Amino acid sequence: MKPFALAALALSVFAATQAPAASGRDIAITGTQDAPACSACHGAKGEGQAAAAIPRLAGLDAGYIFRQLTSFADGTRKNDTMRPVASALSDVERKAVAVYYASQKPAVAPAPAASADTAIAAGAALAQSGDWSRGIPGCSQCHGPDGSGVGALVPRLAGQSAQYIEAQLKAWRAGTREDDPMGLMASVAKKLDDTEIGSVAAYFAAAPSIPSTPTGKPETKANEPKAGTFVPPPENAIPDDEFGKLVRLGANIFRDTQHYAAQYVGNTLACQNCHLDGGRMANSAPLWAAYVSYPAYRSKTKEVNTYEERLQGCFLYSMNGKAPALGSKTLVALEAYSFFLAKGAPVGVEMPGRGYPALKKPAMAFDYARGEQIYKRSCALCHGANGEGQKSADGRPVFPALWGAKSFNWGAGMGNIKNAAGFIKANMPFSQGATLSDQEAWDVAAFVDSHERPQDPRFTGSVAGTRQKYHDGDTWMYGREVNGVVLGAHSPPAGHH
Amino acid sequence: MKPFALAALALSVFAATQAPAASGRDIAITGTQDAPACSACHGAKGEGQAAAAIPRLAGLDAGYIFRQLTSFADGTRKNDTMRPVASALSDVERKAVAVYYASQKPAVAPAPAASADTAIAAGAALAQSGDWSRGIPGCSQCHGPDGSGVGALVPRLAGQSAQYIEAQLKAWRAGTREDDPMGLMASVAKKLDDTEIGSVAAYFAAAPSIPSTPTGKPETKANEPKAGTFVPPPENAIPDDEFGKLVRLGANIFRDTQHYAAQYVGNTLACQNCHLDGGRMANSAPLWAAYVSYPAYRSKTKEVNTYEERLQGCFLYSMNGKAPALGSKTLVALEAYSFFLAKGAPVGVEMPGRGYPALKKPAMAFDYARGEQIYKRSCALCHGANGEGQKSADGRPVFPALWGAKSFNWGAGMGNIKNAAGFIKANMPFSQGATLSDQEAWDVAAFVDSHERPQDPRFTGSVAGTRQKYHDGDTWMYGREVNGVVLGAHSPPAGHH
Repeated sequence: MKPFALAALALSVFAATQAPAASGRDIAITGTQDAPACSACHGAKGEGQAAAAIPRLAGLDAGYIFRQLTSFADGTRKNDTMRPVASALSDVERKAVAVYYASQKPAVAPAPAASADTAIAAGAALAQSGDWSRGIPGCSQCHGPDGSGVGALVPRLAGQSAQYIEAQLKAWRAGTREDDPMGLMASVAKKLDDTEIGSVAAYFAAAPSIPSTPTGKPETKANEPKAGTFVPPPENAIPDDEFGKLVRLGANIFRDTQHYAAQYVGNTLACQNCHLDGGRMANSAPLWAAYVSYPAYRSKTKEVNTYEERLQGCFLYSMNGKAPALGSKTLVALEAYSFFLAKGAPVGVEMPGRGYPALKKPAMAFDYARGEQIYKRSCALCHGANGEGQKSADGRPVFPALWGAKSFNWGAGMGNIKNAAGFIKANMPFSQGATLSDQEAWDVAAFVDSHERPQDPRFTGSVAGTRQKYHDGDTWMYGREVNGVVLGAHSPPAGHH
Repeated sequence: MKPFALAALALSVFAATQAPAASGRDIAITGTQDAPACSACHGAKGEGQAAAAIPRLAGLDAGYIFRQLTSFADGTRKNDTMRPVASALSDVERKAVAVYYASQKPAVAPAPAASADTAIAAGAALAQSGDWSRGIPGCSQCHGPDGSGVGALVPRLAGQSAQYIEAQLKAWRAGTREDDPMGLMASVAKKLDDTEIGSVAAYFAAAPSIPSTPTGKPETKANEPKAGTFVPPPENAIPDDEFGKLVRLGANIFRDTQHYAAQYVGNTLACQNCHLDGGRMANSAPLWAAYVSYPAYRSKTKEVNTYEERLQGCFLYSMNGKAPALGSKTLVALEAYSFFLAKGAPVGVEMPGRGYPALKKPAMAFDYARGEQIYKRSCALCHGANGEGQKSADGRPVFPALWGAKSFNWGAGMGNIKNAAGFIKANMPFSQGATLSDQEAWDVAAFVDSHERPQDPRFTGSVAGTRQKYHDGDTWMYGREVNGVVLGAHSPPAGHH
């Protein structure tokens, strides 16, 4: 990236260009000439009034608070109480009060009554895993682990008023709130019933006192599979024994690879970035379909590989890391988790939904420029303008980097436009799969895979040689010139770093 | 073993106690005063007359030839031509002529016409693998690899006249030949039809020109499974590709472990000694049922083990060898073979026929002395009077050693009387499973497992400590005194030797 581009990035909304007439604290606590004190409802430290559905502001991202104030003022977010207040504040005042509340750390709400435990446990399952059989992703997939929030667009949910969360979800469902980017919240909320909304709200309200993995075993609804698609057992079928412990570890590694397999990971990705719904989702390389397919001969390695050896490949290439040893706890846990998901699946049988769908070559050759437009419209919101992904407010990767030093390396299957197009068509935008045309999927996949990324660990010493040996197909951009630069010629080094 | 016991063993039937009046060669070629020359029919070098169903004698075991002459003479084996000839020879003359023919090496019969290829290929499958769905073991299981013969009881078939073999099988089937020990040949022959008898005879007649593993892909009959029992795919479903090559290697390792995995084996056993029918047989620890059961927690290792780790245990304990490395070609080939056999089996589901049947504790406590009587009656024929097993005429192990330095070690599951009783009940005597009572199975298992064998590789330094840690149950004899000796106290060392 060129120096001036870095400088441009630094020009954020909070670069001080003008000092406010009053401090953020003053606006919050005493108000301005035109606006009442925010603290009257939200509290001096932004603690909110949980029971009255008045949101906690403390600890929210300043950009997020600012954006809400602007939305209230311009009517993008409809709220009769907030509209006149926000309208009475200048841009500079909104920024100041947003920064003030973002920096507050009042005591969190007391832990909920024990009577809420069941709802919280049910909410945990939805919040963390969703219910993909109905197209519902886990909330944490966008709101960050434990609802910690991601950037200025995706608010922190942890510790927020349950009543407030509930009211917002119902407003999105009813269509009375419409300011969600790409309609993401509306599409999710419309799939939730009142009980589920209540559970999920209770779960996040109880954070951060809740553990990061569900310990309860909520009743999850029976999946309603598409005809002919295998249904893996639900998470709550993991047994409470030594085997179950390892399966659960495997599930944790799969969902939070950064934490549970840190030593083998060299980028910001998690297994479930490419294998949605914790490896359960058909057409998203589901683990149950992969598990029953190994041992198998792979043209990639020119030999018969076991399932564990296939998993090693994921770490080496997709995670740009290093391969855990065969028999290591990491690989055995992932194998045990896959085995658990495959329960009842027939060994050695090609299962519908395996891998990613094979898309026919598009009518027009895939095109970088068209892909770029689609990317800006449908992908950049989560993956960032430069494919860099996004982290949660507490620093944990949420949206995966699609290229650059923190993404998968050139040895990964996703670097092949064919594979990326199949994945994107079936699964992207997140929770809105099958909304792009085949042509759009090819174009945007070509755009993504036409950017530099870490070197192929099998690098032969020359880009041309490596292309010839491993990437010699018209759906690989490696070794080709894009925007004046040969891809692979300036790759960051492969491997753990 | 004490010195005088060794000396007693040396007193074989061929210890020269009396010199014959004529040499074996003279008897064969010119006959005696009372007996015609054997060579008139069998040829001067024992080449026989294949087309006339007159057997080749050259290269047969001398003890076997002697035993046949005695059986002809006393009418145990009915043959109007041979009875007067054999009766006219003294014991000493029979021995001499037997030794003469056994030592001859005339040219083998010319390779059969190409038109016989189909029959030979079909015969190869039966000869090597049998058809256990109908209770037919492979001929090689008793007659040795490639029909090379085992001791004085089980004749060499390789290179024998096809017409002669065919005539004998039909005679056993019809009941006109009855000199087979334990009725083993009659029970097999009664299950064969004329085409099968012809194929198997053609196969052995063509030996030793035939390869040691079938290269053709004969049509095998569809298995007729018992209700509820899984049917693995037939051998000829192994695909002709890279994956199939490894599956075939796995099958070869499984059947001829001594040859294909020599470096990991420290005794005279093969995988299929405990897993009959190449790992296909229900109630004989079939591979398909095991494959779908791993990864699993094992109380033996106190952790979750993968299938490959489970296979390592087989080498370490049952084969008294060393464990191939995870990912080694040996383990991957065995895993691929198991995966192939499990095709269509449901992952993670307990399958009928898994492992060995669990026999209820018998009415009477299991008993060494009763077990010894059963052993002598039903087991010693193949496994030897001292549990030492038997090799083929060309030195390859055929009948497994059940105790002693060449058997499984104290860490093997078969050293637990409970497991051995289940295996024996279901599968022994060979091809005559379920003919012993439960009580007999327990008794003879107790007898077998009350003999010394190689040390447990997990030996803690003391027999009592090792018993307490690994063998602390009333179905383990390890560490207990039997016939005045504590088992485990004088074990040969464990491991590869």
